[in-house]
Amino acid sequence: MKATVYKGNKTFSVIEKEIEAPEKGEVRIKVAYSGVCGTDVHIYHGMMDKRVAMPQTIGHEMSGIIDAVGEGVEGYAVGDKVVVRPLDDRLVKASDKGFNHICEDLKFIGIDSPGSMQQYWNVPAFVLHKLKAETDLKLAALIEPLSVATHDVRRSGLVAGETAVVLGGGPIGLLVAMVAKEVGANVIVSEVNEKRIAKAQSMGLHAVNPTKVDLVEYVKEQTDNRRADVVFEVAGVQPALDIMCEVAGIRGRILMVAIHGEKKPVDLFKFFWKELSLIGARVYEKEDYEKSIDLITKNELPFEDMITDVQPLSNIQQVFENIDNNPDGMKVLMDCQQ
Amino acid sequence: MKATVYKGNKTFSVIEKEIEAPEKGEVRIKVAYSGVCGTDVHIYHGMMDKRVAMPQTIGHEMSGIIDAVGEGVEGYAVGDKVVVRPLDDRLVKASDKGFNHICEDLKFIGIDSPGSMQQYWNVPAFVLHKLKAETDLKLAALIEPLSVATHDVRRSGLVAGETAVVLGGGPIGLLVAMVAKEVGANVIVSEVNEKRIAKAQSMGLHAVNPTKVDLVEYVKEQTDNRRADVVFEVAGVQPALDIMCEVAGIRGRILMVAIHGEKKPVDLFKFFWKELSLIGARVYEKEDYEKSIDLITKNELPFEDMITDVQPLSNIQQVFENIDNNPDGMKVLMDCQQ
Ligand SMILES: NC(=O)c1ccc[n+]([C@@H]2O[C@H](COP(=O)([O-])OP(=O)(O)OC[C@H]3O[C@@H](n4cnc5c(N)ncnc54)[C@H](O)[C@@H]3O)[C@@H](O)[C@H]2O)c1
Ligand SMILES: NC(=O)c1ccc[n+]([C@@H]2O[C@H](COP(=O)([O-])OP(=O)(O)OC[C@H]3O[C@@H](n4cnc5c(N)ncnc54)[C@H](O)[C@@H]3O)[C@@H](O)[C@H]2O)c1
Ligand SMILES: [Zn+2]
Ligand SMILES: [Zn+2]
Repeated sequence: MKATVYKGNKTFSVIEKEIEAPEKGEVRIKVAYSGVCGTDVHIYHGMMDKRVAMPQTIGHEMSGIIDAVGEGVEGYAVGDKVVVRPLDDRLVKASDKGFNHICEDLKFIGIDSPGSMQQYWNVPAFVLHKLKAETDLKLAALIEPLSVATHDVRRSGLVAGETAVVLGGGPIGLLVAMVAKEVGANVIVSEVNEKRIAKAQSMGLHAVNPTKVDLVEYVKEQTDNRRADVVFEVAGVQPALDIMCEVAGIRGRILMVAIHGEKKPVDLFKFFWKELSLIGARVYEKEDYEKSIDLITKNELPFEDMITDVQPLSNIQQVFENIDNNPDGMKVLMDCQQ
Repeated sequence: MKATVYKGNKTFSVIEKEIEAPEKGEVRIKVAYSGVCGTDVHIYHGMMDKRVAMPQTIGHEMSGIIDAVGEGVEGYAVGDKVVVRPLDDRLVKASDKGFNHICEDLKFIGIDSPGSMQQYWNVPAFVLHKLKAETDLKLAALIEPLSVATHDVRRSGLVAGETAVVLGGGPIGLLVAMVAKEVGANVIVSEVNEKRIAKAQSMGLHAVNPTKVDLVEYVKEQTDNRRADVVFEVAGVQPALDIMCEVAGIRGRILMVAIHGEKKPVDLFKFFWKELSLIGARVYEKEDYEKSIDLITKNELPFEDMITDVQPLSNIQQVFENIDNNPDGMKVLMDCQQ
């Protein structure tokens, strides 16, 4: 079988190895597609070298078909279409209060242990979610990032008729916007990259450039001065932190999806004054995956537009180099059987 | 009648004036006690001179007895014991979404309009809450700050068995701690002033000094590593902002009660990582007043210990000068009939 490994120093190799039998409690997946995530690009840039045991197969946004079932696995059979929820919570403790998806000793599969950018992948059965027979495997590779979005929207408590402002129109931001719109909210995406604005608009989303329009005034006009009920911070930059407290209306909920590596100035006075809430959101829970599987299977949202390129696994080095040179692209999938 | 006025430049005067009849929709209150609030001290320091129309009678933490009832007022009679919820929300708009207590054009009675530090006070009837015949009027002057605490605790969703850490053991912090304890939570107060720590302990509260013990380790020990379920930030200083994200456990809720006048660095990574929430809380709603009235009337908590001094209204200048020289004191009441 073909596998890829990250070896440090911005380098991937494509290697040949034996197909292994699944161990007790595991299944073997014939991987169909594996999407490239911002985290994978971080790894490629060497920013997670302390965490990633090189040489390491990375990748966690995938779809595939069960190819072999290990001893003791129940409820799954060869031929089942599946996706992996790449959270290994086997070290969960009482002090994690049942929030297994963010437990203190969580291992992220594809970062802390081998990932999906290979032809066959052995994983413990507890990370599996079954797809429908009719679920499209290409779109199914979006289920992992889409579940970030379904988790964020669920945690926000967004309901039909509310206004949501999404700060950042990258892959996560656009998925959040789609899910928020599906809930019945009025959604405004704020994005500075004109190509990404055009992309969002081509997908039927309402997108504006906050360096060209006064976003706060714009949202006030759109909402009869109510401003946003919910703000999703998915840009990860200081201007987004500054505007999130302005654009949120009274009792507004601000979802902190972006990852801020250091302490940043926040206008806490506004939290007091308007009784705002800031709600941290990380990865997903089982129900978020189920919701995403349902959305992808129905395929009524512009998911296909999210996939801007599909490349054979053997091109992995080229794929990561291209992503660096093309910040406008959205989601690139690796075809893991090619 | 006797009234006091703030004239700017750290100066109050005691003046004589006519007792006025209540206008339509108003009642006249014979003020019993009026507590000195941190905000009043800010006013005395000239920090709100732009907002306070001098000469102005200030004060908003009060109790009294209805002395005359204006035309059109229903449900109140001479002799009723009352407190005022000093929020004038007559300019509320649709964009305030029904959150009248924090509406954009809210006027705070006692800051934006005349307050309670006088012998008789005319107020619109809609700000009144009726006390029981047996409610103690001295303790009732604590109902306003206590309602800040009941509001904060209610917004936190704190339930019995949870652990709450209160950062700051000033008047608001201690009231929050009492209400949190009454809910059935395990409460730890963190305070740097040794006199205030001793005060809290004398009131049966569990108080520690974070400059002497490692607060995070201490709370971990007390909670079997779960850390705090709820953190109340009522100190208003950077060390409290730094520690709030550390001491909160997975899915911890952090209540932002303190008023931070400028943007401050916040560890947003922790919000993402542990899925923390930051919940802004400002003043109180009707139900918070009802809860406080109930607590004060029952008088089962150490409210009396909160009142560290009672002074005649005519001593107002001396009272404010003393507060400046004695940061250890808790709540000073003005006896408005003396
Ligand atoms: N919470 C989670 O579990 C989770 C999961 C995946 C990703 N993330 C985080 O979500 C964030 C977004 O991920 P992504 O893959 O979409 O990243 P991305 O970098 O592709 O998207 C960010 C977008 O924000 C835009 N932007 C920059 N400045 C802006 C501004 N001032 N206003 C509006 N938009 C602005 C950029 O042009 C870009 O399109 C990242 O911080 C990522 O680490 C979090
Ligand atoms: N949200 C609201 O509606 C509302 C209402 C009233 C007051 N407030 C605010 O609440 C805050 C507290 O009010 P207060 O009257 O009790 O003020 P206060 O100044 O008397 O109390 C603050 C306490 O924090 C302590 N402190 C300082 N550094 C500390 C640290 N590192 N760790 C722990 N404690 C520390 C101080 O010693 C002091 O006792 C203020 O910011 C005030 O403006 C808010
Ligand atoms: Zn990902
Ligand atoms: Zn007050």
